[in-house]
Amino acid sequence: MKLLSFRFEGKTLFGPKVKKEEAVWDVKSIAEAFGETDFPSTIIEGIAGGLEFVEKVRKLAEQARNSENPEQFKYAFTEVEWLSPIPRTPKNVLGVGKNYAEHAAEMGAEAPPEKILIFTKSPTAIAADEQELPVHAELTESLDYEGELAVVISKKGRNIPKQLAYDHVFGYTIANDITARNIQTGHKQFFLGKSLDGSCPMGPYIVTKDEIPDAHNLSIVTKVNDEVRQNGNTSDMIFKIDELIAEISKFVTLEPGDVILTGTPAGVGKGFNPPKFLKAGDTVKISVEGIGTLVNRFA
Amino acid sequence: MKLLSFRFEGKTLFGPKVKKEEAVWDVKSIAEAFGETDFPSTIIEGIAGGLEFVEKVRKLAEQARNSENPEQFKYAFTEVEWLSPIPRTPKNVLGVGKNYAEHAAEMGAEAPPEKILIFTKSPTAIAADEQELPVHAELTESLDYEGELAVVISKKGRNIPKQLAYDHVFGYTIANDITARNIQTGHKQFFLGKSLDGSCPMGPYIVTKDEIPDAHNLSIVTKVNDEVRQNGNTSDMIFKIDELIAEISKFVTLEPGDVILTGTPAGVGKGFNPPKFLKAGDTVKISVEGIGTLVNRFA
Repeated sequence: MKLLSFRFEGKTLFGPKVKKEEAVWDVKSIAEAFGETDFPSTIIEGIAGGLEFVEKVRKLAEQARNSENPEQFKYAFTEVEWLSPIPRTPKNVLGVGKNYAEHAAEMGAEAPPEKILIFTKSPTAIAADEQELPVHAELTESLDYEGELAVVISKKGRNIPKQLAYDHVFGYTIANDITARNIQTGHKQFFLGKSLDGSCPMGPYIVTKDEIPDAHNLSIVTKVNDEVRQNGNTSDMIFKIDELIAEISKFVTLEPGDVILTGTPAGVGKGFNPPKFLKAGDTVKISVEGIGTLVNRFA
Repeated sequence: MKLLSFRFEGKTLFGPKVKKEEAVWDVKSIAEAFGETDFPSTIIEGIAGGLEFVEKVRKLAEQARNSENPEQFKYAFTEVEWLSPIPRTPKNVLGVGKNYAEHAAEMGAEAPPEKILIFTKSPTAIAADEQELPVHAELTESLDYEGELAVVISKKGRNIPKQLAYDHVFGYTIANDITARNIQTGHKQFFLGKSLDGSCPMGPYIVTKDEIPDAHNLSIVTKVNDEVRQNGNTSDMIFKIDELIAEISKFVTLEPGDVILTGTPAGVGKGFNPPKFLKAGDTVKISVEGIGTLVNRFA
């Protein structure tokens, strides 16, 4: 299932994509119409329910489809404002540094890190698919893209064993881990350079894990103005998703709605000579196989 | 005013300390009793109101005191469970690294950082005054204390000019920026080593800014088992509070309820030879002049 968040008439809503239509089901209003009073009000509450929630959403969409007036429960994509599928994570977005060997090399590292390198991005940086993003010209001349597979956590946990890690995954989306290189380097810790407003677009939707049997065999392609810059595959991650979840949760409690950006393959702007940083007017498209394409233009 | 958060019969409540008594006013129930229907339900909603909110709380406490049965609005400190005054920050807690020259030196830095060094701590690490904390013996043998003045943000803002920075301050509390040194160093970025459960105790209360005319003239003393380890003064901060707010908000949007830990003076465990790290049974007491004392025992 493809699950998305959107705004309509000032309200933040969520629901599954309508099959074969460019539209979304407003699943909360379906639940209300069919007397499901305890249906989650926010996508994060839902996500905490894992696959049971997915099953419930599927049934509600089916009920709506078979109802007398399905149109009342649907919005065309063109009439809603898209949001990041998780509009606001419960803690900072978690990012993994140098998780593809070739990318570690292009960043000047002699070897990939021996231990996972985790940084965070402020949730105020989260943006939506198709949202126009600022280039922050007053702060940086080295704004860079990083196309990444993002993992959405469902169940809360600490010390999650590697073998149980996927029980804590709700699904996957695409993220652009936008980074101001001068700030990332100048301020030592990555946080500031990774947290500018608009620097964490995610979307277009969460694909639930039942539709991605192997998250480590997905091509990931980033284009800037239709020039291919990154052309990788999630099979090349150094620390795989189960290891990331096990390692991070050794130290930090993971919660429903947390998002882990799993690292970027080679081909970021900084990796070129001369570097190819983002500028006003650029459009970045990140496609991950089986998920979709995240598109953002820079204003 | 001293403002605190607490739990009573499963509910998260907040209110001002009752003057000259070891008790707290349940200000939301006072507001309800006196017909104030739009009074904030959470301390963060209140904090967003700045000094107007403080004034309203003061008046409600006064009304309760003068009412026929003030006791119905009060809880003795002994009958409530204390919480961190901000039980959950809207984004990760913000921390400033090496913001006292002597501490930078004891950590092995040749010079203090030229640019602010900002890291984050997971909000899942937040703990309360008097809460017993884990030593995480399975993860670290180098758990360290860092006594700090913590600034609580009221108004949302980005690009806040230095001259207006204090308009965005709600008040101050005390924090222990507990750090697992092996994890901080081994994983390069500070986040994991700063985010273990219980590693961000804060409290006992927020002292509102009207009662702290000069936040840069406060003694700050950390004792471990009654041995003085840190004995500093907030006048020695390299980047002062107004500069921190201006600098951080250049990059990141600050929001009501955000907390900035302003850095620790010299005398952390790692600074001793041999180091004096925390062990089970230790009690850490951090006193900041005009605010109070934050006490935590390690289990």
